[in-house]
Amino acid sequence: MIVLFTDFGPAGPYVGQMKAVLHGIAPDAPVIDLLSDAPAHDPRAAACLLAAYADDFPAGAVFLCVVDPGVGGDRAAVALRADGRWFVGPDNGLFNVVALRARELDWWDITWRPERLSATFHGRDLFAPVAARIARGETPPGERRDARPRIDRGRGPDYARVVYLDHFGNAVTGIRAEGVDPDRRLKAGGRTLASARTYSNVAPGEAFWYANANGLVEIAVNRGRAAAVLGLNVGDPVAWERTGLRTKD
Amino acid sequence: MIVLFTDFGPAGPYVGQMKAVLHGIAPDAPVIDLLSDAPAHDPRAAACLLAAYADDFPAGAVFLCVVDPGVGGDRAAVALRADGRWFVGPDNGLFNVVALRARELDWWDITWRPERLSATFHGRDLFAPVAARIARGETPPGERRDARPRIDRGRGPDYARVVYLDHFGNAVTGIRAEGVDPDRRLKAGGRTLASARTYSNVAPGEAFWYANANGLVEIAVNRGRAAAVLGLNVGDPVAWERTGLRTKD
Amino acid sequence: MIVLFTDFGPAGPYVGQMKAVLHGIAPDAPVIDLLSDAPAHDPRAAACLLAAYADDFPAGAVFLCVVDPGVGGDRAAVALRADGRWFVGPDNGLFNVVALRARELDWWDITWRPERLSATFHGRDLFAPVAARIARGETPPGERRDARPRIDRGRGPDYARVVYLDHFGNAVTGIRAEGVDPDRRLKAGGRTLASARTYSNVAPGEAFWYANANGLVEIAVNRGRAAAVLGLNVGDPVAWERTGLRTKD
Repeated sequence: MIVLFTDFGPAGPYVGQMKAVLHGIAPDAPVIDLLSDAPAHDPRAAACLLAAYADDFPAGAVFLCVVDPGVGGDRAAVALRADGRWFVGPDNGLFNVVALRARELDWWDITWRPERLSATFHGRDLFAPVAARIARGETPPGERRDARPRIDRGRGPDYARVVYLDHFGNAVTGIRAEGVDPDRRLKAGGRTLASARTYSNVAPGEAFWYANANGLVEIAVNRGRAAAVLGLNVGDPVAWERTGLRTKD
Repeated sequence: MIVLFTDFGPAGPYVGQMKAVLHGIAPDAPVIDLLSDAPAHDPRAAACLLAAYADDFPAGAVFLCVVDPGVGGDRAAVALRADGRWFVGPDNGLFNVVALRARELDWWDITWRPERLSATFHGRDLFAPVAARIARGETPPGERRDARPRIDRGRGPDYARVVYLDHFGNAVTGIRAEGVDPDRRLKAGGRTLASARTYSNVAPGEAFWYANANGLVEIAVNRGRAAAVLGLNVGDPVAWERTGLRTKD
Repeated sequence: MIVLFTDFGPAGPYVGQMKAVLHGIAPDAPVIDLLSDAPAHDPRAAACLLAAYADDFPAGAVFLCVVDPGVGGDRAAVALRADGRWFVGPDNGLFNVVALRARELDWWDITWRPERLSATFHGRDLFAPVAARIARGETPPGERRDARPRIDRGRGPDYARVVYLDHFGNAVTGIRAEGVDPDRRLKAGGRTLASARTYSNVAPGEAFWYANANGLVEIAVNRGRAAAVLGLNVGDPVAWERTGLRTKD
């Protein structure tokens, strides 16, 4: 199975062009469109989403990931195997949260280059062929490396910003929800929000935070659009309210 | 065949996450994305579209339908078999038009619950596994019920509102076109519109109504955007012009 | 393989309804969504994109193409075989660039009509069945014609206008980049732009033109949105700057 994770947008030809390449090399591999509107040009925000979604997929799944503002420049191309799942894409921080959370991690620098390598579409020309070959059972065409020095431990697995606005206007943050005390209050968009379990637990129009279905802290408004109500955009900071009782935030 | 009908939006991860579940349970079932931008949080409007599209699909098709503002609350989960096609989703009116129009109708309350059931994404956690099991030939995991008392006959199969704006700015209504006299005039957006057979039958820029390819009354402007020209939004009322000759409207 | 190229938009039911038809007739043919937001109602702009993308696909691929503002009127329905690839859709100029660039070209007028032919959705009712039958190996259901008189040679394969705005705000033109001197300067949106190889070769915020990954001249801003910065829309003219040294533009 090949899973697509890009910032190419909901339409446009780029996803389809990658699929044509995948089909040519690995015609029997199922392809699942996971996300086509990852935060554009923002690998750090995208990294939180990728790690949150990846757990749903079985071992052997190959994630073809393209959030690549430095395409055609000198950033490396990499393939990771993290707890049995594969990730292929640019080495720009996009895989940092997956790597930080992995119990088992292998790392390859992709040194193979195709005959045709455009300056601006490595998703089609480089990453898609590599992902398709891995999906067929091949070893990544490159050099195996020690993964440890490639992980940026200064950037933890949590990111206290809005990383995604969904179709309903909900604002997903890069903060993992597991273990967070539901009595904590979240500051976002100039407001301080209490938590709730689901939309219908608060009054229509009321804003709240909750542990979303992918394990991230998310901000919503029952039957409304949190992004509009709170004026939130991708990249906006959020913070837990500090209280007298807690010393660690 | 599994057919997806949701209000999840044109992008975002939710459709892909459901497809991962479907693939895990029913890997051989073809999956068709029918609609991902059903009217958000509006099961009644969505119900008109679902019934209009369903006739195109063969017996045995399983519609996985998620327009579910009450997710995580106390609304029931249901599966219907209507004239040989299956429908799985929340019991909030989304299936009312399909049920009203069905010649043969069977109804199950879904009582099975998965080990992991998030509060906000039953599409992935509950409805997708049920749809995949039905696509594999299993009986719905629940209790068979008498369908008749579940149908809301007070809400007929027609809905005199705009239920969808398409990419061209055309405004689809919830009114079935079959049997409507083409000489009738439709009031919408402060205007009164005559009918035409297709776009090129009226002058560029002219607004008209027509029987769309799915059997619903639709408002369009030749080479223009009806939604913008007439100021129409989903939910806006439309009405047939009353004339001296007709007594039933 | 069936490849979808339409102006139906990123969401909506129309693509899915065509897929249901394709699956019914050619269930084993892989279907690839190439473009769903071709320039709406603009076959001439769409023709440049279609030709630019088509080269990526193998011989035998069947392109189901619907940019069809005259649907239901008197424009013909056609099937082309151009250098081994098939194209099915309306005869309104959508295939003119493919035809102009083809080394081998065969042309059929589609005379077959389905039992159900709506006035406004020939993509589903006419073109999809024809594409599926060709994908199964059948001859187009129509009359073979001499292709030469059908090509509009007055409209060359280049079109000096913006033909597409992508998700990143890049503005694709209908001008082929092959053979263009990279020292030429492009006038667009009231500015005169130099070329660069890729985004990271210019300063953040700087506008430039480049040969895109599909062989077309494209306008971009590094880490910015060219469409917004330059005020560009689909249909806007662009032009090479005239210099004393050149006499042909």
